Amino acid sequence: MAGNTYGTLFKLTTFGESHGKAIGGIIDGCPAGLELDFEAIQKELERRKPGQSKIVTQRKEPDTVDFLSGIFEGTTTGTPIGFEIVNTNQKSKDYSHIKDTYRPSHADYTYDQKYGTRDYRGGGRSSARETASRVVAGAIAKQFLKDIKIHSYTSSVGELEMDIPYKDLDFSKIDSNDVRCPDDAFAKAFIDRIKEIRKEGDTIGGVITCVIQNVPVGLGEPVFDKLHAELGKAMLSINAVKGFEYGSGFEGAKMKGSDHNDIFNADGSTKTNLSGGVQGGISNGMDIYFKVAFKPVATIMQKQETIDANGNVVEMQGKGRHDPCVVPRAVPIVDAMAALVIADFMLRDKSIKL
Amino acid sequence: MAGNTYGTLFKLTTFGESHGKAIGGIIDGCPAGLELDFEAIQKELERRKPGQSKIVTQRKEPDTVDFLSGIFEGTTTGTPIGFEIVNTNQKSKDYSHIKDTYRPSHADYTYDQKYGTRDYRGGGRSSARETASRVVAGAIAKQFLKDIKIHSYTSSVGELEMDIPYKDLDFSKIDSNDVRCPDDAFAKAFIDRIKEIRKEGDTIGGVITCVIQNVPVGLGEPVFDKLHAELGKAMLSINAVKGFEYGSGFEGAKMKGSDHNDIFNADGSTKTNLSGGVQGGISNGMDIYFKVAFKPVATIMQKQETIDANGNVVEMQGKGRHDPCVVPRAVPIVDAMAALVIADFMLRDKSIKL
Amino acid sequence: MAGNTYGTLFKLTTFGESHGKAIGGIIDGCPAGLELDFEAIQKELERRKPGQSKIVTQRKEPDTVDFLSGIFEGTTTGTPIGFEIVNTNQKSKDYSHIKDTYRPSHADYTYDQKYGTRDYRGGGRSSARETASRVVAGAIAKQFLKDIKIHSYTSSVGELEMDIPYKDLDFSKIDSNDVRCPDDAFAKAFIDRIKEIRKEGDTIGGVITCVIQNVPVGLGEPVFDKLHAELGKAMLSINAVKGFEYGSGFEGAKMKGSDHNDIFNADGSTKTNLSGGVQGGISNGMDIYFKVAFKPVATIMQKQETIDANGNVVEMQGKGRHDPCVVPRAVPIVDAMAALVIADFMLRDKSIKL
Amino acid sequence: MAGNTYGTLFKLTTFGESHGKAIGGIIDGCPAGLELDFEAIQKELERRKPGQSKIVTQRKEPDTVDFLSGIFEGTTTGTPIGFEIVNTNQKSKDYSHIKDTYRPSHADYTYDQKYGTRDYRGGGRSSARETASRVVAGAIAKQFLKDIKIHSYTSSVGELEMDIPYKDLDFSKIDSNDVRCPDDAFAKAFIDRIKEIRKEGDTIGGVITCVIQNVPVGLGEPVFDKLHAELGKAMLSINAVKGFEYGSGFEGAKMKGSDHNDIFNADGSTKTNLSGGVQGGISNGMDIYFKVAFKPVATIMQKQETIDANGNVVEMQGKGRHDPCVVPRAVPIVDAMAALVIADFMLRDKSIKL
Repeated sequence: MAGNTYGTLFKLTTFGESHGKAIGGIIDGCPAGLELDFEAIQKELERRKPGQSKIVTQRKEPDTVDFLSGIFEGTTTGTPIGFEIVNTNQKSKDYSHIKDTYRPSHADYTYDQKYGTRDYRGGGRSSARETASRVVAGAIAKQFLKDIKIHSYTSSVGELEMDIPYKDLDFSKIDSNDVRCPDDAFAKAFIDRIKEIRKEGDTIGGVITCVIQNVPVGLGEPVFDKLHAELGKAMLSINAVKGFEYGSGFEGAKMKGSDHNDIFNADGSTKTNLSGGVQGGISNGMDIYFKVAFKPVATIMQKQETIDANGNVVEMQGKGRHDPCVVPRAVPIVDAMAALVIADFMLRDKSIKL
Repeated sequence: MAGNTYGTLFKLTTFGESHGKAIGGIIDGCPAGLELDFEAIQKELERRKPGQSKIVTQRKEPDTVDFLSGIFEGTTTGTPIGFEIVNTNQKSKDYSHIKDTYRPSHADYTYDQKYGTRDYRGGGRSSARETASRVVAGAIAKQFLKDIKIHSYTSSVGELEMDIPYKDLDFSKIDSNDVRCPDDAFAKAFIDRIKEIRKEGDTIGGVITCVIQNVPVGLGEPVFDKLHAELGKAMLSINAVKGFEYGSGFEGAKMKGSDHNDIFNADGSTKTNLSGGVQGGISNGMDIYFKVAFKPVATIMQKQETIDANGNVVEMQGKGRHDPCVVPRAVPIVDAMAALVIADFMLRDKSIKL
Repeated sequence: MAGNTYGTLFKLTTFGESHGKAIGGIIDGCPAGLELDFEAIQKELERRKPGQSKIVTQRKEPDTVDFLSGIFEGTTTGTPIGFEIVNTNQKSKDYSHIKDTYRPSHADYTYDQKYGTRDYRGGGRSSARETASRVVAGAIAKQFLKDIKIHSYTSSVGELEMDIPYKDLDFSKIDSNDVRCPDDAFAKAFIDRIKEIRKEGDTIGGVITCVIQNVPVGLGEPVFDKLHAELGKAMLSINAVKGFEYGSGFEGAKMKGSDHNDIFNADGSTKTNLSGGVQGGISNGMDIYFKVAFKPVATIMQKQETIDANGNVVEMQGKGRHDPCVVPRAVPIVDAMAALVIADFMLRDKSIKL
Repeated sequence: MAGNTYGTLFKLTTFGESHGKAIGGIIDGCPAGLELDFEAIQKELERRKPGQSKIVTQRKEPDTVDFLSGIFEGTTTGTPIGFEIVNTNQKSKDYSHIKDTYRPSHADYTYDQKYGTRDYRGGGRSSARETASRVVAGAIAKQFLKDIKIHSYTSSVGELEMDIPYKDLDFSKIDSNDVRCPDDAFAKAFIDRIKEIRKEGDTIGGVITCVIQNVPVGLGEPVFDKLHAELGKAMLSINAVKGFEYGSGFEGAKMKGSDHNDIFNADGSTKTNLSGGVQGGISNGMDIYFKVAFKPVATIMQKQETIDANGNVVEMQGKGRHDPCVVPRAVPIVDAMAALVIADFMLRDKSIKL
């Protein structure tokens, strides 16, 4: 159980290091007969890609996915979908400065301790580059989900918090700006803040909100595999995530039952939705919504003290091109993981209509 | 994948409804040769038990666990440990008033929709009674973990938040009061608040903090089964949980990298611990700590509008004895799930010494 | 992955030792809404029960199953079905003579070596008593399978082999005799042979043939979880099984392709069925049939040399009441495992109609 | 659970169709620090490769494996090992004659029925080409297993059966002839028989025997995941396999207990080994041995009647270059699957020393 697989029936296994030959994965369990829109898949990759805008890392990687199996004449066959994204810049960079040094708040130290070895180039397996494979699989899951729509967007950057309820947002505007916030004013503020931080050679955290609409009633498997528990796990498995809350979340912990309970309408829908679309771990047909907290990127362009593999204290400074804020590029990753979770639950319960 | 199993190598499968004959479970994968302290197991059950104090439900259930297999002359044999807790008060209560009615913010509606049927007595499978089985398994996992210590405690009740860092708390005082808060003053405030709420016939949410100490370096399996991702899933699988954050959590999303990074000491430990003991999904040997948000109990002693199975609007009011705040009794459940997560990871990586 | 679970979506986990308090299990994933015929379940247990006839062990055990959860008003609810069979004669027997002795061709030695300890009473977990739990789950699986019919029967005892093709047998006669062979003449010969062997204080092996009818096309998941591969695993997991073959089996290895190929009829059925109802790991709608070889019971009523835990050579002799031939009582176990395999595949492929 | 993964801790997932871009897989769970012998891996592929001798198919495929991840400077890192084998002749062949025709005793019909579509070129996913990925993973598993040695060899071709006990064979001679039989005389007879059959435009079945030596005591997880049950499943998952038996096998079913029991030596080894190295599903330290029966290849160079997708009866004849007997090329596949099974069990039990 080495942990490189997500899902049980719609199952993704990924492989690949940041600076190896390629990254990629196998999607096992995608139903046969799904006519794929390859442009839509590539478009999701573009949303995650480095170098896409001024507020993200300026590295250039083409990130073109190559499908190797499981698709015949454009349609899934029910057999495993193997795919890869070749790492074009794998040899270009010099990582010798971190070969024997543990970057603070990176996984260098823990990988070395766990495995007794590591591919130090660009973070190796611990690099967020791995998430490109998730985006590919998530894009296919999205197509499988048809009418179920997933909308992730940036809702906070640092201390700046967008206080607009999702109901009042126009999701079609999410990609209208570089930070992926559907509100123009907040988008501008977020972008300004990220630029400011970048100038300081620093980084900053943020929050992504995700809304899932048109979910059928009945998704989720109590008691351990509750719908929101799997969503939580999937989100927490994304690099740099520190927290997950759904529905009322941590605010809900401050409330009284008389204020928190969602009163039913006659059709089974609820007047409010503090439950976040899930009751007892099972979707109730209301919108599912949750928040995902991302820490600031650990690599900063400032000098920091750290240690090397021999325990000597050394000084280091981030080199190259790094993201000042991970959130804009993480939006499609949250989308992807949400799609994988929902797709998996669609297959797990045979009584749910596809 | 019907969701009633947690873990991969240290594996718990539970069964049982609130008012069926019994609840219980099977622990598969507990290593052989563990001499069990049965009193310690029963003591954990007492901590979760209804009727234990004035601020929890006054229902009386003996909650005595009966082990059926996997233990020979007091020691585990490596074979599955079957156990059960007989439901003594299974027939005593009248639940006919909820037979055809969906309680707001309960799982009545979603179970009916998913399964086409439900055992409505006391919530059936969706009742938190199921967690007693988790407490039994967690108590055994705790004994397996030996020097790894897990300390959960109430850190918020409603809007009252204990702002004392865990380093300044005396964990030995957790059970010195009914609300399971190791600080006397906050404990008193929390208890007063719960009593107040109970008088109103209302309920209130709260937060539990958990600290895990003496964790070896190397636990956790990237990329999907990161240590904190599994902790998150395990916690979110507990009834009434709305959020999970570890280390700096949602606050971390507001910070800059230069403030958030944990600088190493020469021995690999870190000067700060905003990472919460986990880097890249792998334990780094520092304390693991996280927070779990619980919503207010949905059953309130006030009149509420709801619907019946035919969609008619009806009025209902909670009957019987319910918890005004779930948090005091949830402390041992958080303990148990944390123990199960850690025990599982101890077995998943063969390079970790037991 | 301690191995006490069979199945992925229709999942059985068992617990229990031969002389512990109880054996039992949890069935997770049985769909909701199945009205159970409890008499039919108990009847399958009677078929496996000791003491049922003169050619099996004369031990008396009531083997009454008690359902603890997952069933409400006689119908499955979709939640886990917990059940137990109390071991009534758990304390009555004296097993001190094998406490420190390894019985030849038993699991005493391997359990001790693997776990460092064992419950030696009656073989503990390695006893075939565990299969009673499988029979309970299999009986429920059978009811879930409705029109799919499973017919297992004794086809060999020792060197006596029934050479009648299954097409010429009347399955309704399987239970008309003690050895569970649908042909009167062979049944008599088999019974006579077993009686003879018992008189010698010896035991003998045998073969069970199983035929599954009315299987829909499409069951089975290539490439590793082929339908016949799972059937093989399930059968080989039964105590005392030494071999499995389906369709033409080992005889097929002697044949030419021109003789072995099954030629199609216009409707997709085949004129012959050397394939045994499975092509490429997927059911083709023809009858599935296979054979399972059982070794002779290891406990014999004759003196044998063996060793104790200290490596001393000692003499031992079987005591008590043991089966001279395991096959008659293994018939319902083969039935049960076949039912579990088919039920699981019915749920794994969402395109298969229930 | 779409079935393209084998193993739980040493886990192989494969992808790829016979005439797609590439086949390959991901090995997840291979421990870090294993220095790989890449020549040894390629050599195993050569043993499975078409065109290697006069008694196998004369197709030419280079079958060169390309590793994409999980290996750094020649040593495994503990992260997933992605690999691929490019299909060089993917476009060269004309398969239009089978596009709408179901070949007898092939998986064409069942794939079409299950998935509603199929990649008909060369059998697509159902082609034994997939097993090249298993050979790669198995070759790595073998290196992980160090002193545990696996020896598979051809023991029967058609009705010709080699009656020499494995103890009397020199395993170093297995690859000294084209049919992979360690006895010169039988090798010659087998080869002659295959040549004869090929001239007839026919095919023939055969049997492979596998012996595993130096297995530690304690491998295998009762009750469902017995060592021999997993071996059986793994073998039955190989294309064309019809039967599996271990130790005394089907012959054991004819024996008496007094003849079948393996009497212990003082050191825990046994004087005989009818048990085949496994007691109660757990290895006992003796040699493990088993037999695997392969049916004759379904594609023959003779005219056969069959049906097309519309149910019309048509005539067809195999084209191109096919194996007259699958057994010589299946030897490395049996080796590979055996290695994967043993490697997985080595990791599943933490008390087994690596």
